[in-house]
Amino acid sequence: MAKRLYVVGLGPGDPKYFTAQARAALEDAQVLCGYTVYVELVKGLYPDKETYTTPMTKEIDRCRWALETAEGGRTVALVCSGDAGVYGMAGPVLQLAPQFPEVEVEVVPGVTSALSGGALLGAPVGHDFCVISLSDLLTPWEVIENRLRCAAAGDFSMAIYNPASHKRPDYLRRACDILLDAGVSPDTVCGYVRSTGRAGEEAHVTTLAQLRDASLDMFCTAFIGSSSTLADHGRMIAPRGYEKKRAL
Amino acid sequence: MAKRLYVVGLGPGDPKYFTAQARAALEDAQVLCGYTVYVELVKGLYPDKETYTTPMTKEIDRCRWALETAEGGRTVALVCSGDAGVYGMAGPVLQLAPQFPEVEVEVVPGVTSALSGGALLGAPVGHDFCVISLSDLLTPWEVIENRLRCAAAGDFSMAIYNPASHKRPDYLRRACDILLDAGVSPDTVCGYVRSTGRAGEEAHVTTLAQLRDASLDMFCTAFIGSSSTLADHGRMIAPRGYEKKRAL
Repeated sequence: MAKRLYVVGLGPGDPKYFTAQARAALEDAQVLCGYTVYVELVKGLYPDKETYTTPMTKEIDRCRWALETAEGGRTVALVCSGDAGVYGMAGPVLQLAPQFPEVEVEVVPGVTSALSGGALLGAPVGHDFCVISLSDLLTPWEVIENRLRCAAAGDFSMAIYNPASHKRPDYLRRACDILLDAGVSPDTVCGYVRSTGRAGEEAHVTTLAQLRDASLDMFCTAFIGSSSTLADHGRMIAPRGYEKKRAL
Repeated sequence: MAKRLYVVGLGPGDPKYFTAQARAALEDAQVLCGYTVYVELVKGLYPDKETYTTPMTKEIDRCRWALETAEGGRTVALVCSGDAGVYGMAGPVLQLAPQFPEVEVEVVPGVTSALSGGALLGAPVGHDFCVISLSDLLTPWEVIENRLRCAAAGDFSMAIYNPASHKRPDYLRRACDILLDAGVSPDTVCGYVRSTGRAGEEAHVTTLAQLRDASLDMFCTAFIGSSSTLADHGRMIAPRGYEKKRAL
């Protein structure tokens, strides 16, 4: 019998964002594991299943535990918020997986915040876009700064993950200052969402100058428009094309 | 009673990728409309619902028809492949929507190809990434070229949409040449998927030099690794961080 580990993207939280494939994986699994908050989300739906939770910083232990448990013969679903890949556990699991050759790993994609938060705002990532995390826990700040500058030079729309946390209250302000320094207009249409699909859900359309001074937290995703992004009746919209072809 | 238009991202095709929210929108709708191929995907599930299809190039007519029909009192689901926003119909619908003030537009996000194709390959967009379309139907090629160069300068992972078509058989080669010219190593780990979730599904891990000469078509999505992307046991993996912090 196949030894199986699902790495499952749940979307932002509410079960309405679960795909049928994610639902089937959760049903097939004997053990649900992941970061405490995400396991709580699914536990209520499957109260009889075994669960295993680890705190935020113990991701590699969690991946190893999931692979070991699958190797032992129990089917495991390792749950992630958003997508299974994007800043998720699919990468570390697949890096460890060759040590567990009998385990078949199936990656189950999910709706990442750029899309779920984007839908609340309108269509901020309707055309070419970048996803950039401001967390410097595993990435040097210089890499993040360079990516912000390059995204600005490419006139990309951006979805900014992890814009702030208790330990990094000013990172979004630093990022906005880098974008302003790179020539992005302070009037650029921007937006942010908080707690998509959960209690306290909010969506705000603003400008880069205002976003710089907004109070975002770890439950937020920020969106920076390209030069052609519009604010229209409270929505943030990246047009599909360049009807007015711009000089570069 | 609310006049309602759902703009629904279906994911890559197979109903396993539908979210519960997408399913509920399709069920609530009286009329299903969209590009012929996508309406065919959902018609089988709801054979009794009215459908309205338009060809690929008639998107704006389709959006207007959907808004008019919703204004007339019938609930409409306008379906898109992948996400509702990413190169989808949410943008044009929201741009037209102020002309139909009684219609409530709800954007329902879906699993875009960067995620669904990414899951087949492993975790190619596990860290910061860009999504870039090579279609120059609505975007000048110079904008696309600049974005490729900036994505390379930022050492982003990339998901490349619309890598080729009958009319643009050599665009992926041109894009690869731009990346090589911008200093991306020919050994960079790359990948591509074809027909995710449909008959003929394929996933290939390769290098930038080989991707340049691969035969991709309009059913493909290509993935370009960052300098830290790994190929491991047939998977393409973007590590979550910079354990070896690189000099910039």
